[in-house]
Amino acid sequence: MDPDAVAKAFVEHYYRTFDSNRADLGNLYQDGSMLTFEGAKTQGSQAIVAKLAGLPFQQCLHKVSTVDCQPSGPGGGVLVFVSGLLQLAGEQHPLKFSQMFHLIPTPQGSFYVLNDIFRLNYA
Amino acid sequence: MDPDAVAKAFVEHYYRTFDSNRADLGNLYQDGSMLTFEGAKTQGSQAIVAKLAGLPFQQCLHKVSTVDCQPSGPGGGVLVFVSGLLQLAGEQHPLKFSQMFHLIPTPQGSFYVLNDIFRLNYA
Repeated sequence: MDPDAVAKAFVEHYYRTFDSNRADLGNLYQDGSMLTFEGAKTQGSQAIVAKLAGLPFQQCLHKVSTVDCQPSGPGGGVLVFVSGLLQLAGEQHPLKFSQMFHLIPTPQGSFYVLNDIFRLNYA
Repeated sequence: MDPDAVAKAFVEHYYRTFDSNRADLGNLYQDGSMLTFEGAKTQGSQAIVAKLAGLPFQQCLHKVSTVDCQPSGPGGGVLVFVSGLLQLAGEQHPLKFSQMFHLIPTPQGSFYVLNDIFRLNYA
């Protein structure tokens, strides 16, 4: 298991899905998953998808600037740290964001998101 | 164990130590610890302290803007996500940064840093 390859594939998949159909992100979370979005905590796959679907913008496009990753311990987890730009439809300037994910291996050989923390980088 | 209290105490201690005597940060890392600083990976307490001590600035002051935290799993670990400003001596404008830590409990009832990822938020 190469953490860099896992991180790269996850990041591409996550933001492509976010920008095309946020509801599909539910498959990436489980009941114990936690999202902290701009300081607001949400737990569980269903609640997280509802939170993401309810964000006050419809179309958006994430542009990833940097991806850093590290193994999170002996259990095969991977920490992914992303910085990038978030362009909202109808807005002139993109927003800068930072986001981290903690990916946990599943018995099926895939990964799910246990931890997800998102922050806009205000000027 | 309250993750929010752990995160708050850690963040205060970490940046106060960084800004006063970086060499003392070695106590917070162990041999398996990993630092990714602006994309460059360093492993182990000694190498991490050498990396931090060798950064091309002497005096600095971190000003924390936000601290988010989540439990990292059943083992008692805590993920801490920080955004803030880094003021370097002699520079007019502070730099914006984002940083994440993965704290692991020690048998002595304290925590050490297993994962540390730092990024400046360029404009």
